[in-house]
Amino acid sequence: MLGEFELIQRYFMPLQEAHATAGIALENGDDAALLVPQAGQQLVVSVDTSVSNVHFPHDAPAHAIGHRALAVALSDLAAMGATSRWCLMAMTLDKRIFSGRATAEQWLSGYAEGFHALCQQHATALVGGDVTSGALTIGITVMGEVPTGQALTRAGAKIGDVIAVTGTLGGAAGGLALWRQGERELSHPLLARYLLPQPRLAAGVALRGVATAALDISDGLLADLAHLRKASNVGCALEADALPLAVGLQETLGHDGAIKAALSGGDDYELLVTLTPKNLAIAQQRLANLGLSLTAIGHCTETLGVTGVAVSDYEGWQHFSGEAP
Amino acid sequence: MLGEFELIQRYFMPLQEAHATAGIALENGDDAALLVPQAGQQLVVSVDTSVSNVHFPHDAPAHAIGHRALAVALSDLAAMGATSRWCLMAMTLDKRIFSGRATAEQWLSGYAEGFHALCQQHATALVGGDVTSGALTIGITVMGEVPTGQALTRAGAKIGDVIAVTGTLGGAAGGLALWRQGERELSHPLLARYLLPQPRLAAGVALRGVATAALDISDGLLADLAHLRKASNVGCALEADALPLAVGLQETLGHDGAIKAALSGGDDYELLVTLTPKNLAIAQQRLANLGLSLTAIGHCTETLGVTGVAVSDYEGWQHFSGEAP
Repeated sequence: MLGEFELIQRYFMPLQEAHATAGIALENGDDAALLVPQAGQQLVVSVDTSVSNVHFPHDAPAHAIGHRALAVALSDLAAMGATSRWCLMAMTLDKRIFSGRATAEQWLSGYAEGFHALCQQHATALVGGDVTSGALTIGITVMGEVPTGQALTRAGAKIGDVIAVTGTLGGAAGGLALWRQGERELSHPLLARYLLPQPRLAAGVALRGVATAALDISDGLLADLAHLRKASNVGCALEADALPLAVGLQETLGHDGAIKAALSGGDDYELLVTLTPKNLAIAQQRLANLGLSLTAIGHCTETLGVTGVAVSDYEGWQHFSGEAP
Repeated sequence: MLGEFELIQRYFMPLQEAHATAGIALENGDDAALLVPQAGQQLVVSVDTSVSNVHFPHDAPAHAIGHRALAVALSDLAAMGATSRWCLMAMTLDKRIFSGRATAEQWLSGYAEGFHALCQQHATALVGGDVTSGALTIGITVMGEVPTGQALTRAGAKIGDVIAVTGTLGGAAGGLALWRQGERELSHPLLARYLLPQPRLAAGVALRGVATAALDISDGLLADLAHLRKASNVGCALEADALPLAVGLQETLGHDGAIKAALSGGDDYELLVTLTPKNLAIAQQRLANLGLSLTAIGHCTETLGVTGVAVSDYEGWQHFSGEAP
């Protein structure tokens, strides 16, 4: 069996060499990492845990597990308009993965590959970690920066603001349904939406100064919208017909199922934003330059609550209860 | 059953109100926390995971579990000479704790109490977290600061330096042995050493500019000394008779067992430091002002390896293998 130090040395230390080391005064390998924040920036930090068979299927490809655990954490930085700089990984590994050495190595190198690739894509350095033994659980702390005063929060939406979402909705719920039906081909667009979500970091940065509020859709549109409504003290009038459904979603789940997935399916990791009507076109142009759509799906109202969709049918999905949408 | 949001709201959000909010631009409750590092400081970050029945007994008092999970993480900041400022908590909760609501509330409020008290003691604000369902696992990311260039690392020990340790050794191993024998009284000094370790943050700060190298003793003296030897490229001559044994350790484990616990027992969370001979008295005086002893236990040598103790008998304890010392 691999010990903790050997495992970190073999699979996770090399990840750093390929990264920009700007801002790292002392790397992983001492008691803690020493980092150098930039002047004029605020630090943006968040932690997310991915539990096997709660947040991802235990038999998902290892590289997808590595990618996904980091992606869901980075998505919170995207929602703040931050750029990502550093991350720490606390991984609890199920000993059963190590019953055969070859399998353990395959799994770990696959995991590291998926994790590493997404780190590189977002210039994020792995600066600390801890590997323990137990039920497979991965906790990722991400740290980024945003110029002082420019962070996107949940609290800035005003009455009359347009509500918009990046990309498409419901794809992750569709992918989960397909996985449960036995689909294992990661090139299937819906399965990729579930297992290989893309944190919208560049979109978050592009929306600085334009969006009045933002958060990421991890628990489902309506559940996350509830956080925004509460923080901003506004209501929301949605247009069900305007929801940008993921390609192929209606074919997989039917019309009603697709609408339900778009409203309540978690794990899409798109950004949900509000903007003044005159800024919508500006934001759409900026995101188009990134190859990403921004679709208006309603507007903020003085009357609290949500109208335009049958809310009672589509309660939000809390990961903690572990139920699928 | 309590949902994630309700649980965080009830047990963890109130923790912040009692804390200094200096350096927090936006608290927990948005997608991420916004923090304000101080000019002239480097950021010191580390993550530690505590797994039920690997790092602590599942039936330990809840307040001790909360205290201990944070303490072991803070100990890494102490080892860098940093002051602690912020932490994030990723907690995976075993659903069985929630089978009876009253029990769940008792457990959670006890946990929060232990966690909270240690946060207050070290002026550390809980700025982010994630609560998920699964096997009980607690991952704590800690963030502190140290003036640029003043961090204590593992790499600065020089030939001729004195090797010293704060406090006493072996107490946690003795406490674990007592726990296994059925002892449940936390006021027992050895049990307290195991379940309620004290991170030596004030000592780490006091040793800035005096210690040439430092790390915390989490895996056992010899195992952690090996990290220091490797990073500093020195050998170590230890004096077995000089080891500061925890009070009551010989009575509990016998003479040989006490020496073995001091050399190889993990979880003491004392600091292991090196200093020039002339700085030893200065460091001892500074730590005496904090009510803490600093005991010389050997010196650094040109010849690599360890002499003075029967090393082969006392191999280090890796948490990952899950074996008790």
